[in-house]
Amino acid sequence: MEEKIKTLSALYATHFTAELDRVRLRTGKVTERIKIDHPAAAAILPFIDPAHILLVRQWRYALGKETIELPAGKADPGEELDVCALRELEEETGYHAERLIPIFNFYPAIGYSNELIRIYGASGLTRIDRVIDEDEIAQVEVMTVDHALDLILRGVIHDSKSALGILLFQARQARGEIPQDFFG
Amino acid sequence: MEEKIKTLSALYATHFTAELDRVRLRTGKVTERIKIDHPAAAAILPFIDPAHILLVRQWRYALGKETIELPAGKADPGEELDVCALRELEEETGYHAERLIPIFNFYPAIGYSNELIRIYGASGLTRIDRVIDEDEIAQVEVMTVDHALDLILRGVIHDSKSALGILLFQARQARGEIPQDFFG
Repeated sequence: MEEKIKTLSALYATHFTAELDRVRLRTGKVTERIKIDHPAAAAILPFIDPAHILLVRQWRYALGKETIELPAGKADPGEELDVCALRELEEETGYHAERLIPIFNFYPAIGYSNELIRIYGASGLTRIDRVIDEDEIAQVEVMTVDHALDLILRGVIHDSKSALGILLFQARQARGEIPQDFFG
Repeated sequence: MEEKIKTLSALYATHFTAELDRVRLRTGKVTERIKIDHPAAAAILPFIDPAHILLVRQWRYALGKETIELPAGKADPGEELDVCALRELEEETGYHAERLIPIFNFYPAIGYSNELIRIYGASGLTRIDRVIDEDEIAQVEVMTVDHALDLILRGVIHDSKSALGILLFQARQARGEIPQDFFG
């Protein structure tokens, strides 16, 4: 247990708050902790067929470079994560998914953020008539699951949700935990 | 490419800075982005023997609960990540490692932080005569790799570095990428 003594400073953004707190540790020592209060998010591993997935290329301001990732995004206030997953998939790839299964819930940055990301597998994809959100997404790519796994092991796919989504879908598949009818 | 127009506000902590920036997107649209400028960190998957690893229990202020994780920590200014890994392992578990191999470099929170975590596998462990950092670590646990994998799939181990370290060590082992002499 660590107990807040006071908030020393804070930064308020549209979607979250960062607080620097003075904190008393279990041992009695007084120190500072940062805490980002962040909405939950959904990430989607979208299967075109059992061997092929969709990934998105996007610019990441915090890194100053373009990355290849699973489609993903923050939940709107009051929005359920499965609804968020379907919405983000449509906005970022232009595909609607018929089926979603939860793959993993995780905390990306447990040292300073309470953000939770829920990763879903998605299948039964159909192209819908909508424009992709070009403010966020530069390009949508189709690749084999095997190639995506290679890109993880070579360090090209290097963000937590994308690597975890691909690795854990495969781990659950190997254990027979993906429902038989997932791929339709 | 996204271009900073100006910094709207900032929060300065001892080890990092959070900035809220007004930004011009590729498409011309003006929006806000947050950017946490964070030091790199090392995480360690420490093998007592080929079947058993060490994990640490610690309180996470941002979540308000205790977690089970790989030992890990931020690099000190100018500190190489392999040196950081050995230091954090000693501080958090009381073990020195003879061998370190890099397993994965990743960005935990690519949407708002430039933090990079490098995960190492560690072996050749010997107990050293030092007190564990009780401000950070509540308990050190030994468990089998198989049990740790179960805890991931059941959502008990739920932070990005711990799940990725265990999954990717196994993936590299399955591909014959872990050196023969790693376990001595």
